[in-house]
Amino acid sequence: MTRGLSPTPRTTVLRGRDRARTQADELDELLADALIAHLGVVVDQHPMVIPVAFGVDRDGPDRGGSLYVHGSPGAQWFRSAIGNDVCLTVTELDGLVVARSAFHHSMNYRSGVIVGAARAVTEPQEKTHALDLIVDHMIPEQSATLREHTGKELTRTAVMAVPLFEASMKVRAHGPVDEESDLDSPAWAGVIDIRRTASEPRTADDCHQPIPTHVHHRAAGLRKG
Amino acid sequence: MTRGLSPTPRTTVLRGRDRARTQADELDELLADALIAHLGVVVDQHPMVIPVAFGVDRDGPDRGGSLYVHGSPGAQWFRSAIGNDVCLTVTELDGLVVARSAFHHSMNYRSGVIVGAARAVTEPQEKTHALDLIVDHMIPEQSATLREHTGKELTRTAVMAVPLFEASMKVRAHGPVDEESDLDSPAWAGVIDIRRTASEPRTADDCHQPIPTHVHHRAAGLRKG
Repeated sequence: MTRGLSPTPRTTVLRGRDRARTQADELDELLADALIAHLGVVVDQHPMVIPVAFGVDRDGPDRGGSLYVHGSPGAQWFRSAIGNDVCLTVTELDGLVVARSAFHHSMNYRSGVIVGAARAVTEPQEKTHALDLIVDHMIPEQSATLREHTGKELTRTAVMAVPLFEASMKVRAHGPVDEESDLDSPAWAGVIDIRRTASEPRTADDCHQPIPTHVHHRAAGLRKG
Repeated sequence: MTRGLSPTPRTTVLRGRDRARTQADELDELLADALIAHLGVVVDQHPMVIPVAFGVDRDGPDRGGSLYVHGSPGAQWFRSAIGNDVCLTVTELDGLVVARSAFHHSMNYRSGVIVGAARAVTEPQEKTHALDLIVDHMIPEQSATLREHTGKELTRTAVMAVPLFEASMKVRAHGPVDEESDLDSPAWAGVIDIRRTASEPRTADDCHQPIPTHVHHRAAGLRKG
């Protein structure tokens, strides 16, 4: 069974429709690959864009599932988000596309845009679950290896949930598309592929524990692709 | 001579002040490193965040210099931006910081936030200059190798300028900082460093030109660091 994206006008791709993706599975893959999102919030009548860590629960209580973001309870951007529409954009840059004209220069990328009203997550069980998802998004299987959150830590961390229901996605994944009349140009055309890579895990100076298998796996997984 | 950042309250870092950077030179280095920015615009009373290519001219006509973004003249996000405050955020993710508690998990990053009113760039000479800067931001020295923009191309491309005057920057670049009481925990602590890498340039199937030196240099530069 497949689930569709773009159920509302404000997340329907209008420009560059050939780049639009329509299935939730593709967005889920992108969200799994991405390490950060950029959260847009209206603060004092102007937009603010903040890089954030996040976690995803497609079975969460919000429509279409829940995307969780944490922050400081005192942060203005966090307080401004609650109860209001926010936008979460996740972008993976995959290549620089060099063409024979400035106009046809482009980038290869995967980008997802989620719009929805942010809800404050205050119920302790959901809040703990959300924080575990955010940690496990960064390092899969990590939360199970950690002590429980203290009450003070939970008080000092605010969590919001954004419904995954309203979303769109665009992908560009091909070489340059030049004007017919430029094909004999002396200019070069092609692609520089871009990807993310990762070091071996580096143990903190004050830590004498061996690197756990799941941390090794995470670093190796980030080096692939 | 150094120039300071954060000249206004809305770009003064209030949370995590130890991570704040205050000099324009540091922001300029980050902007030079970054390949995309995330542009926040208020559209129909909700924020939209769009990944964009950009170019920078510290000597541009806007206060503090000009950051240029291009888009489709018909795009709603572009039209909504003109004359209104927008936010451009540039983030480079440098590492995953693994701690002994969920609370102290973090990321190493460099992030710059620029807020200002977007101006439509319509004067042909400035518009051409802005588009050249955007191409050269992606591949330095590239615009000089290309034919001139046609009138049709210029009509089909819209350009905005955002003043670089109001900006803030945060940097985290260190290992985990755990609670004293967690230091004897069996949990591992450390960092997985993240960086961007690039392939050798791949020539388009329909191109028979050799890879230019400046394109080789760009790919090699992206592989470093």
